[in-house]
Amino acid sequence: MSDRPIDVLDRAKGKKVMIKLKNGEEISGVLKALDLHLNLWLEEAEVQKNELKIRLGSVLVRGDTIVYASPG
Amino acid sequence: MSDRPIDVLDRAKGKKVMIKLKNGEEISGVLKALDLHLNLWLEEAEVQKNELKIRLGSVLVRGDTIVYASPG
Amino acid sequence: MSDRPIDVLDRAKGKKVMIKLKNGEEISGVLKALDLHLNLWLEEAEVQKNELKIRLGSVLVRGDTIVYASPG
Amino acid sequence: MSDRPIDVLDRAKGKKVMIKLKNGEEISGVLKALDLHLNLWLEEAEVQKNELKIRLGSVLVRGDTIVYASPG
Amino acid sequence: MSDRPIDVLDRAKGKKVMIKLKNGEEISGVLKALDLHLNLWLEEAEVQKNELKIRLGSVLVRGDTIVYASPG
Amino acid sequence: MSDRPIDVLDRAKGKKVMIKLKNGEEISGVLKALDLHLNLWLEEAEVQKNELKIRLGSVLVRGDTIVYASPG
Amino acid sequence: MSDRPIDVLDRAKGKKVMIKLKNGEEISGVLKALDLHLNLWLEEAEVQKNELKIRLGSVLVRGDTIVYASPG
Repeated sequence: MSDRPIDVLDRAKGKKVMIKLKNGEEISGVLKALDLHLNLWLEEAEVQKNELKIRLGSVLVRGDTIVYASPG
Repeated sequence: MSDRPIDVLDRAKGKKVMIKLKNGEEISGVLKALDLHLNLWLEEAEVQKNELKIRLGSVLVRGDTIVYASPG
Repeated sequence: MSDRPIDVLDRAKGKKVMIKLKNGEEISGVLKALDLHLNLWLEEAEVQKNELKIRLGSVLVRGDTIVYASPG
Repeated sequence: MSDRPIDVLDRAKGKKVMIKLKNGEEISGVLKALDLHLNLWLEEAEVQKNELKIRLGSVLVRGDTIVYASPG
Repeated sequence: MSDRPIDVLDRAKGKKVMIKLKNGEEISGVLKALDLHLNLWLEEAEVQKNELKIRLGSVLVRGDTIVYASPG
Repeated sequence: MSDRPIDVLDRAKGKKVMIKLKNGEEISGVLKALDLHLNLWLEEAEVQKNELKIRLGSVLVRGDTIVYASPG
Repeated sequence: MSDRPIDVLDRAKGKKVMIKLKNGEEISGVLKALDLHLNLWLEEAEVQKNELKIRLGSVLVRGDTIVYASPG
């Protein structure tokens, strides 16, 4: 059975992931849930733009704003 | 039964949420209703761009303009 | 029966609404009709960009150019 | 029977309309035909950007490039 | 029988048309074929950006990059 | 039987084509395969941006990033 | 049997590929899996923007952010 690209995230549930957004920001957090549109639910999330880091807590990230997502 | 990403917002109905928009603005307000396109109805909403804060009251936010949404 | 996000606009028919567009302009006018794509028909409409205000009269606003819409 | 947003344009056939485009240009002309995607056929059309005005004659405007359209 | 917006181009087959693109360039050429997505096949095509004019010969223009198209 | 716009590329298989991309770059190469989304497989491809030219070899170009494509 | 554009990547599984993104960044890595939307799973991935190179490890790249992909 062959792998699907989304499996790299599916296996990262409960772990920390780093998300690069189209608006240039980066969000990191613990992956709680994802769907086929790549909508993501993160916990303990933080967003970073340039030097600035802001705590978000729980967050829903729209899949169509994501460039790439990495469990590291 | 597994969680869906949108559940993080679904559970936030009646509570204050913060929305980051693709145009760089942030809207906060009390979440009244949402749909699967992530269209949101907020009450007591305020929009913030840079230092400026403006009261909107009731507002419909189009789902396709949202980067992320956080109940905090 | 639960509310849908679009209901906040549906109830605003015949009243003045303020529309924020993706190109940075704001349009205000009396809401005459809307559809599920969020296409809007406004009467007595005015468009504002920076300090400039222009009278449009009747106008059809494409739903996919809208960031948010508020009956205030 | 309730109105649809597109009716504001449908009733403007044979009359002059003003179109605001996403690229910042404005086109005006006599509305000959339209479809549900908001593709428009204009006659005696002129395009204006900043101070510059250019005669186009007949023109097909793609619906997805339109911000708003006004019969005035 | 009523006209469709695309008819203004359909009748221009074999004639010279001017195409305004979303990237700011203008292409002119003899219209050989078109489809409902507004994909166009031009012959003897030239592209112009600012003062610069370049001969392309045969070219396929993607419909979703077109702002407007005019047979003049 | 009438021509379709994509035929101008279909007949160019095995020949060199020039592709203009939405990001401003130009790619040239020998057309190996194409599909209806205008996804292209090029061999001996080179990409050019401003004065800079880089050899890519084999490359898959996404159709939705193409402005126009010309067999010359 | 004729080739499809995606075959150029399908044959590159297990090999290093270079991906050009719409945000101007380049990602390289070993191709583990791909789907028809061009979503890619890369291992040992690195991202490069201007002079800066950052190690990502495993990464899911959204297909709609890709300009072109090359196995070299």
